Amino acid sequence: SCEGLYFGDGRRKIDYVLVFNHRRHSSIRSASASVSRAELSLGNARGGEPMEVADQEMQLIRQEFEANLLDAGLEIERDREVKAHGLSFTRIHAPWPVLCREAEFLKVKVPTKTVIKETGFGSRLSSVWRKLNQPFQPKVFHQDHGSTKFLSHYTHTHTHTHTHTHTHTHTHTHTHTHTHTHILTTMVLHEEWARYSAFFKYQPIDLVRKYFGEKVGLYFAWLGVYTQLLIPASIVGIIVFGYGVATVDTNVPSLEMCDDRLNFTMCPLCDGACDYWHLSNACGTARASHLFDNPATVFFAIFMSLWAVLFLEHWKRRQISLSFSWDLTGIEDDEVNTQNTSGVEVGVANRSKIFVVTIEKLTWKDRLPGYLVNISSILFMFGLTCSAVFSVIIYRITISALMAMNPDPEIKSNVRVTVTATAVIINLVVILILDEIYGYVALRLTELEIPKTETDYEERLILKAFLLKFMNAYAPIFYVAFFKGRFAGRPGSYTYVFNNYRMEECAPGGCLIELCIQLSIIMLGKQLIQNNIFEIGIPKLKKLFRSLRDKKSTPKERDEEKPHQWNLDYALAPFEGLTPEYMEMIIQFGFVSLFVASFPLAPLFALLNNVIEIRLDAKKFVTELRRPVAVRAKDIGIWYNILSGMGKLSVIINAFVISFTSDFVPRLVYQYMFSPTGTMDGFINHTLSYFNVSEFKPGKAPLNSQHDGAGLSIEFCMYKDYREPPWSSDSYQFSKQYWCVLSARLAFVILFQNLVMFLSLMVAWVIPDVPKTIVEQLKREKKLLVNLFLQEEKEKFQLIQSFFVKDATLQSDSQVPNPSQGLPLPGRYSTLPIGPTAGDGGGGPRARCRAASFSQFSGDLSSLPGKENSNSKHTAV
Amino acid sequence: SCEGLYFGDGRRKIDYVLVFNHRRHSSIRSASASVSRAELSLGNARGGEPMEVADQEMQLIRQEFEANLLDAGLEIERDREVKAHGLSFTRIHAPWPVLCREAEFLKVKVPTKTVIKETGFGSRLSSVWRKLNQPFQPKVFHQDHGSTKFLSHYTHTHTHTHTHTHTHTHTHTHTHTHTHTHILTTMVLHEEWARYSAFFKYQPIDLVRKYFGEKVGLYFAWLGVYTQLLIPASIVGIIVFGYGVATVDTNVPSLEMCDDRLNFTMCPLCDGACDYWHLSNACGTARASHLFDNPATVFFAIFMSLWAVLFLEHWKRRQISLSFSWDLTGIEDDEVNTQNTSGVEVGVANRSKIFVVTIEKLTWKDRLPGYLVNISSILFMFGLTCSAVFSVIIYRITISALMAMNPDPEIKSNVRVTVTATAVIINLVVILILDEIYGYVALRLTELEIPKTETDYEERLILKAFLLKFMNAYAPIFYVAFFKGRFAGRPGSYTYVFNNYRMEECAPGGCLIELCIQLSIIMLGKQLIQNNIFEIGIPKLKKLFRSLRDKKSTPKERDEEKPHQWNLDYALAPFEGLTPEYMEMIIQFGFVSLFVASFPLAPLFALLNNVIEIRLDAKKFVTELRRPVAVRAKDIGIWYNILSGMGKLSVIINAFVISFTSDFVPRLVYQYMFSPTGTMDGFINHTLSYFNVSEFKPGKAPLNSQHDGAGLSIEFCMYKDYREPPWSSDSYQFSKQYWCVLSARLAFVILFQNLVMFLSLMVAWVIPDVPKTIVEQLKREKKLLVNLFLQEEKEKFQLIQSFFVKDATLQSDSQVPNPSQGLPLPGRYSTLPIGPTAGDGGGGPRARCRAASFSQFSGDLSSLPGKENSNSKHTAV
Repeated sequence: SCEGLYFGDGRRKIDYVLVFNHRRHSSIRSASASVSRAELSLGNARGGEPMEVADQEMQLIRQEFEANLLDAGLEIERDREVKAHGLSFTRIHAPWPVLCREAEFLKVKVPTKTVIKETGFGSRLSSVWRKLNQPFQPKVFHQDHGSTKFLSHYTHTHTHTHTHTHTHTHTHTHTHTHTHTHILTTMVLHEEWARYSAFFKYQPIDLVRKYFGEKVGLYFAWLGVYTQLLIPASIVGIIVFGYGVATVDTNVPSLEMCDDRLNFTMCPLCDGACDYWHLSNACGTARASHLFDNPATVFFAIFMSLWAVLFLEHWKRRQISLSFSWDLTGIEDDEVNTQNTSGVEVGVANRSKIFVVTIEKLTWKDRLPGYLVNISSILFMFGLTCSAVFSVIIYRITISALMAMNPDPEIKSNVRVTVTATAVIINLVVILILDEIYGYVALRLTELEIPKTETDYEERLILKAFLLKFMNAYAPIFYVAFFKGRFAGRPGSYTYVFNNYRMEECAPGGCLIELCIQLSIIMLGKQLIQNNIFEIGIPKLKKLFRSLRDKKSTPKERDEEKPHQWNLDYALAPFEGLTPEYMEMIIQFGFVSLFVASFPLAPLFALLNNVIEIRLDAKKFVTELRRPVAVRAKDIGIWYNILSGMGKLSVIINAFVISFTSDFVPRLVYQYMFSPTGTMDGFINHTLSYFNVSEFKPGKAPLNSQHDGAGLSIEFCMYKDYREPPWSSDSYQFSKQYWCVLSARLAFVILFQNLVMFLSLMVAWVIPDVPKTIVEQLKREKKLLVNLFLQEEKEKFQLIQSFFVKDATLQSDSQVPNPSQGLPLPGRYSTLPIGPTAGDGGGGPRARCRAASFSQFSGDLSSLPGKENSNSKHTAV
Repeated sequence: SCEGLYFGDGRRKIDYVLVFNHRRHSSIRSASASVSRAELSLGNARGGEPMEVADQEMQLIRQEFEANLLDAGLEIERDREVKAHGLSFTRIHAPWPVLCREAEFLKVKVPTKTVIKETGFGSRLSSVWRKLNQPFQPKVFHQDHGSTKFLSHYTHTHTHTHTHTHTHTHTHTHTHTHTHTHILTTMVLHEEWARYSAFFKYQPIDLVRKYFGEKVGLYFAWLGVYTQLLIPASIVGIIVFGYGVATVDTNVPSLEMCDDRLNFTMCPLCDGACDYWHLSNACGTARASHLFDNPATVFFAIFMSLWAVLFLEHWKRRQISLSFSWDLTGIEDDEVNTQNTSGVEVGVANRSKIFVVTIEKLTWKDRLPGYLVNISSILFMFGLTCSAVFSVIIYRITISALMAMNPDPEIKSNVRVTVTATAVIINLVVILILDEIYGYVALRLTELEIPKTETDYEERLILKAFLLKFMNAYAPIFYVAFFKGRFAGRPGSYTYVFNNYRMEECAPGGCLIELCIQLSIIMLGKQLIQNNIFEIGIPKLKKLFRSLRDKKSTPKERDEEKPHQWNLDYALAPFEGLTPEYMEMIIQFGFVSLFVASFPLAPLFALLNNVIEIRLDAKKFVTELRRPVAVRAKDIGIWYNILSGMGKLSVIINAFVISFTSDFVPRLVYQYMFSPTGTMDGFINHTLSYFNVSEFKPGKAPLNSQHDGAGLSIEFCMYKDYREPPWSSDSYQFSKQYWCVLSARLAFVILFQNLVMFLSLMVAWVIPDVPKTIVEQLKREKKLLVNLFLQEEKEKFQLIQSFFVKDATLQSDSQVPNPSQGLPLPGRYSTLPIGPTAGDGGGGPRARCRAASFSQFSGDLSSLPGKENSNSKHTAV
């Protein structure tokens, strides 16, 4: 299976493959893609191929491009036969000196031979822990990573000498190990990571990082931390739900609602067609409501807000641990920008035009139209989402009204269930469709802005996509939580839309249960459908389509020869970035944090989804995608800010859900301010107001019955609100209770928000960002490094001095000493081996060398202070 | 004047002076202090002298200490005559190699000869700006700092060779420049900084940093930024106040209060002795109240919250700019901890015992008593502050009651003014006294905790001191803002303390005016008294006392000889850290931000104070204090967190002040919900409630009159509250208006808090932390450095190779080449001159070398990988 991994000579390893796709007709479609077989990413490789050019011109450009590669020191191998059309592959091998040179410029840290060992009590305790944890650990070779670590340092200036003198020997050793571990890595990833049966295990993150690079590694590490922390949240959620189940039979409000003897005659739910009804009919929803709307929910909302902070803090620590063990501590942020600056402007612009190298600075005027289009499009999308939500509302209102008028009693009795179910499904479908559209729109809009750097591009894209998708996913939920039923009016003065249809009200059990239904269906539906259709189904379809297309375009070549590894790899789907993966999880995080007060089981469902999601993504990365170009990253970037923003938002949203959507505050107010006995008895009565049925406007009163069960004429019906009774002087005005409850609700929001914010600050303050062990290890490493360099410098100095001395001696007599005898030599640098240890998983220094950055850094040597500055005194030793 | 700056030989400069004070009697007082004449700070110098030891033992310890200094490579000079008693000085000179060695370990960056120049449009624009700014710039030599900068890098490993070979030549040049600029620096600081007449100028921060070190430099830079940003705040504050002044005659509520025709008979302000009164009597306070309680105040509160965020963001940027131009970018946080770990444990413990080197780790049990004492003391202090506030309340209540009973009408009419004035003054005095006590207590408590590092010590001390002083300064203000008048009860059911005295109410004009008075008096009083007495008076007194004492103890020696510079310096006050300076400003920042809604002129007063404060502090530092040991710091540390915490707190406090202390919300509610005309007419009536005078409890009704002016019997009196009238069914209960206004108040808090928080986030997000110019310059510097080092490494490699070649040549024939001919030499390193450029202000590398850190770093060389690791293949070139 190693056959496809080497050049024809069987020695030089293929590090990167470029593919050129010449269409038979010079017709115009995306003509190029780069398969990354290995780790070397080339700044110009991505966007450097022409599209709408004649074949001849294309050939020239290709030749020039390849010549540039050779200039940069890379070695390339072309296909033996030159095909006029179809796919042709150019394999690239990056020789060891080139890798070393690039590693220097990128400040890649490489391990020295100095080993740091954990010692003392901590290590003994952690070994017990490791033993307990054993069954959950993936079986990976070199599992002693936890307690030993090679002291690493930048290759910076210290490998130079070494490189030039010993390239060849090293390259060979290196390549062999390399290949060996490469296959091993893939195997382990297959067995221990990309399998559903491994769901209970930790991920082999270090291997993932070695094979896919830091950026992908960080994604999976983050997903792992998130999933892990969902476990306690799920458990607490289950307990809270359990509390609701256990107390449903002793809960006074729902008992009162189910009590037939308390004869509350409620006002009709629709005009004309609907009859008066007994509150005890809503017993079911009242009981269901209690499952989610009980005092434990308040505790759970606080818990989850703190959980979100804890999650972020925990991730910060994990990130720092990872960047320590992956030797990313020295990377600076601006580096990424610098090296991609010109490359990406090309890359981005290339999608519509060729070679528009926008090196000159774009002025404010150039950018203005883009921004204007941007803002107006985003506003339009906002409008679109809102109108989608509003359409569903209209659908619900009209269908309920129409169904209520239907004489068939069976249809009538199922109105609410049918309407709610269909409406939520419509919502879901709309969300899924708009989600795809918005993703595409965000992409196009970001390209319009012509961002300067890759990072900038990514951040803008993510922000826009997040904004649109977030709004899309949550708009209907926000509506149900905060607006539904608040504009319905009251009997005798209902609000009408289109002059005919009454605004919808919440179910008699309260809005919270509706919020809960909406939330759970959208969350579950989105996850199931997106996981199954978008992540499994569509890629499979695309693959099918691609293979069909390629078969059509290159039917003969394929059939004749045994396909090379690069042919097989090219058949895989291209890697399209981590943004969709993150986005899905962030939206899920919203379900878990934003409205968690209404649905304590959300963390559980998220957990179940993620356990599968990890393996699904892993499978996708290992078997279905072309291996992505490894990208260095020391954090998850803007996603962290989005998460932290959502955490902040969740506090205020949960505060409002608890105080305004649930009945928690009114119950408290009743118990402590209005209840004559100090218990909840009479609460239902307290929340209802009277309406004098004689005040119904003409045509709005129920047509069928004016009598209750006992045959008495109905004088008053009741509705859920705090308003003055008909016999009061200011009838139907909000009563004192209303304002009192409102004050309590608002006070609760203030209290909740500030308490949680304070607790969050405390939690974030108490948990140090950098784990203590890391701080200590960093200190130790630094000390070792200082010693190492002092020693080296000393030896080098001695070496130079010894030569001077020798020179002096030679001037007096011409005795010849053996140069290799007892002297410290430049080879001293070999204590920083860049060889096997550094590159063993395939993600060593190779993963991060870019030709682009080389040409940039090595360009300007003229600004150096010349030799005339060097003090001539120094020769006088 | 240079005479005292050198050793006897006139060449070696005195870098540090130790002073030993042998008391005539072996009696026990602080026996040692260290005068820092120059820049070398020695980790062990501070706490290394004995106190309660016999003279003999003291001598031994001193000898050992000085021997250690010599061991570390320092050169010392003792006084010529050995005195048995009194002061004796040991001068220390740190030779150039020692400084270089230490600079390496501390990673001090030194300028290379490569100059970075600003170019292009930005520089042209900034030169115009510079011209406009010219009159505000201090006249400092080398004012071109803005546009040129020397490329700097760590001395790390690159000076080593250089150092050993060329010490002496360099030291001389260096010293001469050095001294010269030293005197110049002091002069410029005197002329351009430490003078009141320079109040309108920028501070020469770079010079301050050079002379006093980074920590002091950062303090003054911070103070400068704060003062500068107070200017816009003051202007807006004045405008807001002006708006109040301009609208006072058209403001309906205050006009209504002053209108004699609206005959509101108010309930008496005290039991028995006080009569009913007309609301129009309170016209004055109502008008005064409007000055501070108007819609503009709300805007101002929002503005100031954003201002606080802006200030912090601005400071962040300034800090980064400074750390860039001061070459602090590479300093890591843990460094400070590492190097002081053992030193400070000695230092801290030393204050009570001698040489208790607590190297062994303190266990939890050892620390527990300390923490317990800590917590209980802090709780006790909290109690103390609260009881002080409460005592003043009692004072106010009783004195008003007593004065009201006084038959003299003149006394009676002045009750409120007298009581308020005296009470605030008492408050102020209590605050000032407790402030000093709390500072002392915080110090003692922190020592009890035995913190591990200097940074740790400082942070704990600051936190504790801040907590206590903050509470102390703001407790009375909090009381007035949120509690005063809320527990007074209502006519017929007042709250009584000690069974006799009614709880105090706010003035008829509202609580805000009282808050304003309280705030302004405490703020102004604190600033004036602390500036004049504590910062000028007491130091003068101390100096007087010190000089008297020293004269008494060493009367003869002083008179005989012309005093050395070190004698004069020793006579100055010791530097006691920046904590008090920062603390004063932070407490002031609280006045400016926390309650700014009630007193828009606070920023103005703060500005006036600070303009003086800067120069006062400057004078103190330049002329009255011993020159502090220069300490490296890259930020203002925990103060930033405290500031940011106060900024956050200010949002919620201002929200509550506006909604609960001011009448802003009730006015809005009245205008939009209750007013029949939609205007403010009738507002005063709306805020008052009726009381039936027949319901006064026996003995509580006014004794003197039962009749109003017209001779009619008074049936009802009015009081400020929203309660049901006596004729209502639930008389004297809170009315619907009450709950309605309460809801509005709470809603306002939520709205205000979240709006401001959101805006703050936006502001912080929009303003990049690192100024763009700095980002670009950093990139350019990095590129230059990479080039520089690549070049160097290459030359070194060539050098070594050339020797090998030569060796090989010599082996074949014994021709002798000239070693100094045409070869790049190790002297190449001289492009990193540590000489004149680096040290020119006296704050060069010298300022930061510590002998302590040397012994730590150079200790453990054994863990290095041995020579046996070096690959023997390397010799086979």
